[in-house]
Amino acid sequence: MARPLNYGEAVLLWEDGKGRTFLITLEEGGEFHSHRGVIRHDDIAGRPEGTPILSGTGHRFIAFRPRVPERMMKVRRRTQIVYPKDAGWLILALDLFPGARVIEMGTGSGAFTIVLAQLVGREGRVYTFDRRQDFLENALANLERYGLRERVEAQLLEAGQPFPEDDVDAIFLDLPDPWLAVPAAYAALAPGRPIALIVPTAEQLKTTFAALQEVGFSALEAVELLERKVLVRAREGVRPFERMVGFTGYLVSARKALPN
Amino acid sequence: MARPLNYGEAVLLWEDGKGRTFLITLEEGGEFHSHRGVIRHDDIAGRPEGTPILSGTGHRFIAFRPRVPERMMKVRRRTQIVYPKDAGWLILALDLFPGARVIEMGTGSGAFTIVLAQLVGREGRVYTFDRRQDFLENALANLERYGLRERVEAQLLEAGQPFPEDDVDAIFLDLPDPWLAVPAAYAALAPGRPIALIVPTAEQLKTTFAALQEVGFSALEAVELLERKVLVRAREGVRPFERMVGFTGYLVSARKALPN
Amino acid sequence: MARPLNYGEAVLLWEDGKGRTFLITLEEGGEFHSHRGVIRHDDIAGRPEGTPILSGTGHRFIAFRPRVPERMMKVRRRTQIVYPKDAGWLILALDLFPGARVIEMGTGSGAFTIVLAQLVGREGRVYTFDRRQDFLENALANLERYGLRERVEAQLLEAGQPFPEDDVDAIFLDLPDPWLAVPAAYAALAPGRPIALIVPTAEQLKTTFAALQEVGFSALEAVELLERKVLVRAREGVRPFERMVGFTGYLVSARKALPN
Amino acid sequence: MARPLNYGEAVLLWEDGKGRTFLITLEEGGEFHSHRGVIRHDDIAGRPEGTPILSGTGHRFIAFRPRVPERMMKVRRRTQIVYPKDAGWLILALDLFPGARVIEMGTGSGAFTIVLAQLVGREGRVYTFDRRQDFLENALANLERYGLRERVEAQLLEAGQPFPEDDVDAIFLDLPDPWLAVPAAYAALAPGRPIALIVPTAEQLKTTFAALQEVGFSALEAVELLERKVLVRAREGVRPFERMVGFTGYLVSARKALPN
Repeated sequence: MARPLNYGEAVLLWEDGKGRTFLITLEEGGEFHSHRGVIRHDDIAGRPEGTPILSGTGHRFIAFRPRVPERMMKVRRRTQIVYPKDAGWLILALDLFPGARVIEMGTGSGAFTIVLAQLVGREGRVYTFDRRQDFLENALANLERYGLRERVEAQLLEAGQPFPEDDVDAIFLDLPDPWLAVPAAYAALAPGRPIALIVPTAEQLKTTFAALQEVGFSALEAVELLERKVLVRAREGVRPFERMVGFTGYLVSARKALPN
Repeated sequence: MARPLNYGEAVLLWEDGKGRTFLITLEEGGEFHSHRGVIRHDDIAGRPEGTPILSGTGHRFIAFRPRVPERMMKVRRRTQIVYPKDAGWLILALDLFPGARVIEMGTGSGAFTIVLAQLVGREGRVYTFDRRQDFLENALANLERYGLRERVEAQLLEAGQPFPEDDVDAIFLDLPDPWLAVPAAYAALAPGRPIALIVPTAEQLKTTFAALQEVGFSALEAVELLERKVLVRAREGVRPFERMVGFTGYLVSARKALPN
Repeated sequence: MARPLNYGEAVLLWEDGKGRTFLITLEEGGEFHSHRGVIRHDDIAGRPEGTPILSGTGHRFIAFRPRVPERMMKVRRRTQIVYPKDAGWLILALDLFPGARVIEMGTGSGAFTIVLAQLVGREGRVYTFDRRQDFLENALANLERYGLRERVEAQLLEAGQPFPEDDVDAIFLDLPDPWLAVPAAYAALAPGRPIALIVPTAEQLKTTFAALQEVGFSALEAVELLERKVLVRAREGVRPFERMVGFTGYLVSARKALPN
Repeated sequence: MARPLNYGEAVLLWEDGKGRTFLITLEEGGEFHSHRGVIRHDDIAGRPEGTPILSGTGHRFIAFRPRVPERMMKVRRRTQIVYPKDAGWLILALDLFPGARVIEMGTGSGAFTIVLAQLVGREGRVYTFDRRQDFLENALANLERYGLRERVEAQLLEAGQPFPEDDVDAIFLDLPDPWLAVPAAYAALAPGRPIALIVPTAEQLKTTFAALQEVGFSALEAVELLERKVLVRAREGVRPFERMVGFTGYLVSARKALPN
């Protein structure tokens, strides 16, 4: 049975034809003033997602629940975020599963925390750490919005300090100096399980590899992903978009090997 | 507590230094004859993953449980498979979560079925369909290997026939003629929920877009992903690999909009 | 002997540190009002290229003659231009050499005409055609600026009309419907010599290939080029730029085969 | 008038349909034993390029003069070569023109020397240097084959030694340690004129940038180019090839600025 969109819920408005999207929170009597006329929240509440809504000027919008990539892209940003294209790769590298216990160091704006919390499910646990209290609070507010708050434990921590959890199933690091946290990550991870990282430059990539090998990680891999959006129009034909994101970071994965 | 590697389980041997991997199933008294000497299964069984093993000639291998990307790449292939780089994107586009009920049409070798089954968890369900019984059987054997068999219902179906499930949370199509299955997918999907597809050529991409729009899908997007592996060596420095996979398919996502 | 920069000449001002560039034409008493203060043309005239110039506010600019990529990018644009990254590929595909006689159909803004004229030299000849007189005039003005005007013959022509030259060494087509000009191109080209084209969509690429094969072209190839600018900074390290041009067109080359 | 293909000349055989190419030198009574039957050189000599030739087994080949990209790819290789995709970019960055005097350091197999020699023409001059006599000799033999020998002066030189020419129009470096040759390059180059380099790793790119800035080069830029070959078939449709070259090097360009 399709749950109706309720007051208090986040709703993504997709502008028909244009592909522009807007994220709103449904409020009784609320109005969204788009460049294409006003949309009344009361026209949306109580109806299933996928419902088309006409603005005051007759433009068509579709009301959806935001999927995880849109939740990520629409977080209140306090930092660079992990992009969906990279998040997909990381989830597979981290071998996520429902019920997993996962550490994230470098909460940032919490975009990737949303993905982790969604995929570990109610029985899983995300332990997220940052050195800044305001980042943690912002991230928890973003998680709250999507009902994911209770799966996440957030805590202040400096890179290099030991993690207060151990035997975890996966660890993700998104830090300016990820190598500082690598020994603590090795200690906290269950044998054989994966670590993944995102690093911004070639030099950091090299330093990170050295740090991983030093403490006993094996199976090191590094990639970068290029996402090309493709324009498909009946009249104009098929071709990639003229502009694209050129780089977001190097993605690294490795696994905890035990000493001989 | 780290579960030891058991007889009957799939184990990935990572050749230290080289990065070559081998997938074996642990058997009592079994031997793996690598190009670097013999590895005895009995040296692995009962030990935690991450354990280093020396071959008869003294080469070091690490014994891991395969993660989901390795499970995908090492399926017994009867068809082209969905690659991990694309699988990550698709999982996010499909907005997967533990407990989700998902349709896959075009089981193929079952590589992507493994990802779906892992991420929907024990309470979720994957309904996978193919027109070929031998493909279904091969895919189920691949799933069995990883203890994911009971989350999946496999059934013969021709593209265009109605799906025997409805109100599902997500649908994935991997077919030579995906447009044939688009009306049935619209019927089976819960309002607002996502469909994702992979198509091999620009023409098919265009035909697919037209079919999606025709039956009422909205929020259409198409991308392609380029994954560049990066070589990181202390002496040689950092640079992308000289060879790469140039293309695996166009990825499409859309969402079910309701009629006005 | 280094020729000094003269009045009447085009000069590229490179803003030190920033990498921004400005194209000016030196005039007696002229002034360039940059966002970093005024630069007096008389401070540049008579000095060799490579000379550093200080603006009124003390910012450093270097005065260069524009190279061919900068000449291309700084043409007065009336149309999409051929980008330098693609121009390099096309020059090799066209097998250009000093003294060559070359046809270009679709003069556009004349960016690629500049490259052709520079590389065929004084003894070569570029025959450029467009259906719009204003485009031809704009292109000739761009060529005039660089002393390349006399190597180029410009003429009005509709796609599909025969070219008034024959036995030419190479032909380049940049047209919305390039297939219309393919038979005339075959007729005008010397046996075995190359044609190259740029086309914007997958469908046009396919139609173009069919047209080329139909009239007797062989050795067909199509590529696209992605240029990634790389940021190299002592402190920040090495990484690709965050934004890039995602697509400019499909590049095609083929050669005139004779009938059996 | 189309010059016929002569004995002693290099001829490229293009296998119709397949796109495979073979480079032969026409000899009286010579035979080329392809996997598709024998081709007699005497069937080619005296005929124009573009002529179709049937092999003994009835397969169709087209006889062409190799263009510059094919000349490059088919050199007798003693080293990594500069690839055509990169050569196109470099030619524009070097602002080549007929009559130019150009230095190349790191002759290698002479693939890029062929492009330089073709484009500077009879009145230009390529000064090419390498530390290995056998490389120089191999490169000169490659040039001889295409009638370009007399435009090139080859000489033994160690990176770091001064160049015996000055006031040259452009300099290209292809060396393992390009920074060693940077001061000598600055000295030999005319004011304002460009240098270009190819370097294999991120670290070398950084060291090269530092060396260029140190001696007074300005307008530094670094890029890498990805070339994707596109498959265009009437039945299969349009899509990129499944395999591609992932990386060949970072391309750098800069210009000689004068001291304040």
